[in-house]
Amino acid sequence: MTEDTICAIATAPGGALGIIRVSGPESLSIVDKVFVPVHGARIPERKPSSLVFGAIRTSTGEVLDEAVVSVYRAPHSYTGEDSVEISVHGSSYIMQQVIQLLVRNGCRTARPGEYTQRAFLNGKMDLSQAEAVADLIASRSAATHRLAMNQMRGGFSKELRALRDRLLHFTSLVELELDFSDHEELEFANRDELHQLADEIEHVISRLTDSFSTGNALKNGVPVAIIGETNAGKSTLLNALLHEDKAIVSDIQGTTRDAIEDTISVEGITFRFIDTAGIRHTEDTIENLGIERTFQKMDQASMILWMIDASSPQEKFREITEKILSHCDGKKLLILFNKSDLITEAKAQELLQWMDAQKQHQDRKDWQHLFISAKQNLSLDELEHWLVKSAALPEVSQDDIIVTNARHYEALLHALDAIRRVQQGLDNELPGDLMAQDLRECIFYLQDIVGEVSSQQVLNNIFEHFCIGK
Amino acid sequence: MTEDTICAIATAPGGALGIIRVSGPESLSIVDKVFVPVHGARIPERKPSSLVFGAIRTSTGEVLDEAVVSVYRAPHSYTGEDSVEISVHGSSYIMQQVIQLLVRNGCRTARPGEYTQRAFLNGKMDLSQAEAVADLIASRSAATHRLAMNQMRGGFSKELRALRDRLLHFTSLVELELDFSDHEELEFANRDELHQLADEIEHVISRLTDSFSTGNALKNGVPVAIIGETNAGKSTLLNALLHEDKAIVSDIQGTTRDAIEDTISVEGITFRFIDTAGIRHTEDTIENLGIERTFQKMDQASMILWMIDASSPQEKFREITEKILSHCDGKKLLILFNKSDLITEAKAQELLQWMDAQKQHQDRKDWQHLFISAKQNLSLDELEHWLVKSAALPEVSQDDIIVTNARHYEALLHALDAIRRVQQGLDNELPGDLMAQDLRECIFYLQDIVGEVSSQQVLNNIFEHFCIGK
Repeated sequence: MTEDTICAIATAPGGALGIIRVSGPESLSIVDKVFVPVHGARIPERKPSSLVFGAIRTSTGEVLDEAVVSVYRAPHSYTGEDSVEISVHGSSYIMQQVIQLLVRNGCRTARPGEYTQRAFLNGKMDLSQAEAVADLIASRSAATHRLAMNQMRGGFSKELRALRDRLLHFTSLVELELDFSDHEELEFANRDELHQLADEIEHVISRLTDSFSTGNALKNGVPVAIIGETNAGKSTLLNALLHEDKAIVSDIQGTTRDAIEDTISVEGITFRFIDTAGIRHTEDTIENLGIERTFQKMDQASMILWMIDASSPQEKFREITEKILSHCDGKKLLILFNKSDLITEAKAQELLQWMDAQKQHQDRKDWQHLFISAKQNLSLDELEHWLVKSAALPEVSQDDIIVTNARHYEALLHALDAIRRVQQGLDNELPGDLMAQDLRECIFYLQDIVGEVSSQQVLNNIFEHFCIGK
Repeated sequence: MTEDTICAIATAPGGALGIIRVSGPESLSIVDKVFVPVHGARIPERKPSSLVFGAIRTSTGEVLDEAVVSVYRAPHSYTGEDSVEISVHGSSYIMQQVIQLLVRNGCRTARPGEYTQRAFLNGKMDLSQAEAVADLIASRSAATHRLAMNQMRGGFSKELRALRDRLLHFTSLVELELDFSDHEELEFANRDELHQLADEIEHVISRLTDSFSTGNALKNGVPVAIIGETNAGKSTLLNALLHEDKAIVSDIQGTTRDAIEDTISVEGITFRFIDTAGIRHTEDTIENLGIERTFQKMDQASMILWMIDASSPQEKFREITEKILSHCDGKKLLILFNKSDLITEAKAQELLQWMDAQKQHQDRKDWQHLFISAKQNLSLDELEHWLVKSAALPEVSQDDIIVTNARHYEALLHALDAIRRVQQGLDNELPGDLMAQDLRECIFYLQDIVGEVSSQQVLNNIFEHFCIGK
């Protein structure tokens, strides 16, 4: 299926060791041209899964580096093809030179994710397992690591297979009836049993789609919007929160993550801050468009931090109160009275009264508040504590099936739609052939997740977000 | 000799693969506690130089990652001890967890360079070869790579051994005479032959010490001092030259390099810029002390760029001309008339006349000049061309023996001193026992380079500058 022999540097620059990966039908013969063992047989004569010590030599016979070569033979390798891993000293110069040497001897440089793509194409793993490899490399916490590992080891795929088996059983019952459709009274499965089966399947799929908000929050961070007037201190707060956490970002270069948003990690939970424009009451059309976008962004967040400049006159934020609160339905809201070091006790009492009135008015006793100073680092610990408590993310155990991948989530939503149409069909006593069509569609989407029916374009989209060498 | 089993991450974070190295007597049994092969025998029963696929498991049985383990048995490993390399997915989280797991099961985390130090202590390489490992990892060009590779593969050590053998032969001749010192007339070797031998040895050692200026320039960059008045534009020029070259610096994090000075690389040659204070004529004692330091720094440079603000009145730099030129003996000098876009043709002619007069006066026809503008990027290509041409570094071939290490250079200087005392002794017909003492001292310093007589403190100094995992 794959004919090229590919090569890539599989380790980041700057370490003690560097690994170059070679995979494809000519792996052993190409490496044989550039590598001379210290003792014994040449590379193509070596046993599978053996280590060979020797030297990388250029065409002029110059020693580029001493190296240890790992020899793998199809199908017992990561890609399922003949493969070689070359371990050299971790110098960028040496690694680049080895790649050039391999290319001159017949290798092609690998595309991002091409090793894992080949592993998928050669049946070493299904698509959801392949996707988990990228998540595993990017994992930064026990929870994200567990989810990726479980998915890579096939836990999610197994759940999907079980689901498909039940759907196939269901479909076979329905289609059997179609074969005997001349006999109208004939019902192989009674409708109550079919309904119960459909309900069970719907229950499993909707549990999976429901898990995505948790999975997405764990993987990409809990989305938090900081909103408020322009001068309320949003940036100051964000910088104060980010202050101690910058190191994490540098840790994940070269992984599959796209642009990093501002995130902090508190007690193992990642929070992702959504950037918003300042909100104020205005008649300016253009400015109102910007504010409208802020409200749209609020809708993506599950938690809202509404910053109010406690030292400013109340009229300023009273005008926007109604509008803001109307976008807080179903979200956790914390009102932050910023610059509280600058106000009198009387002013604080006044603000509390105003807030209590709002809570009364909107019937939302769960809204909370804090008096803080972003500039003076006042009560920011309490703010972080509120974030963790309100995120209320579950402990993830190694057997939990939680959907973390947007592509999977989308396919599951389609499957859920289809199975719900089956339920309705049963309720409305629709003909079996329509039901069978919906059942087939449901099965299709589940198979798409593990790559059994995926198009080349879908595959390309997935693997181009991998790092080189994986 | 070494009893601890050590572990360390040997690859930089951010790659597709990560390697953890374990070395020491308990390597196989410790890895056996955390790694479960998919098929076949457990790790301690595996053949040497074999690859085993399996999973890293925590004490609770949770799978941390799938891994390929390379099994090495003493003495056939990098350190000469039983060793294991664990290849996992390149996630910092996973690698840190594996290290913690190994430590809980009896490993100690390795100190910088400890693997190479063990290789040295176990006789896998001599000290100059061990030092070359760090240089190899840090190598960024064909020349530095070749020098490090040749040193690591023992080219330099072989040269030193040949030298020592000749010295031992010499010493044995002298000491034989001492044994028969009652017979004053007895000369086993005639003095002319001894003198010829001493001359040859002196020649080889001084060739090696002479090579250090080239070796040091290749390894650490050719030292260039930019001098001139405070407002002549030194910083602007430096920034303009550095502009395109910042990327290289990030490439070598985690290697053995200490603080990076401002360096640029032109046509494969590295230039290292020495920071200097502005020079002007002043009666201020404190300021003159600072200027004196600038002159001292000029003495470290092999090339001088003297920047003159062409638009300023000539009196300003005429006052310091004599002093500057007196520090340019034996160095390449380029006079840069900066801000030349701001001057008239007449002014330019005037500057040229002044310069010709100086060249005449100092009898230095080799001094050159350029009209540039650091701010406008004017003629900076010509400047770089001058740097490359004037550096005149030789092409390094793979068999060249060039000293690049300051410790080796120092030891060779001591050896050179000693052999020169032997030559003088022969000239002055000194008694043989004094000569024998000088010969032994010469041998001592050569042995110090390869680590045969080095103290623990010397070893610690060397290996603490390595990176972890090497």
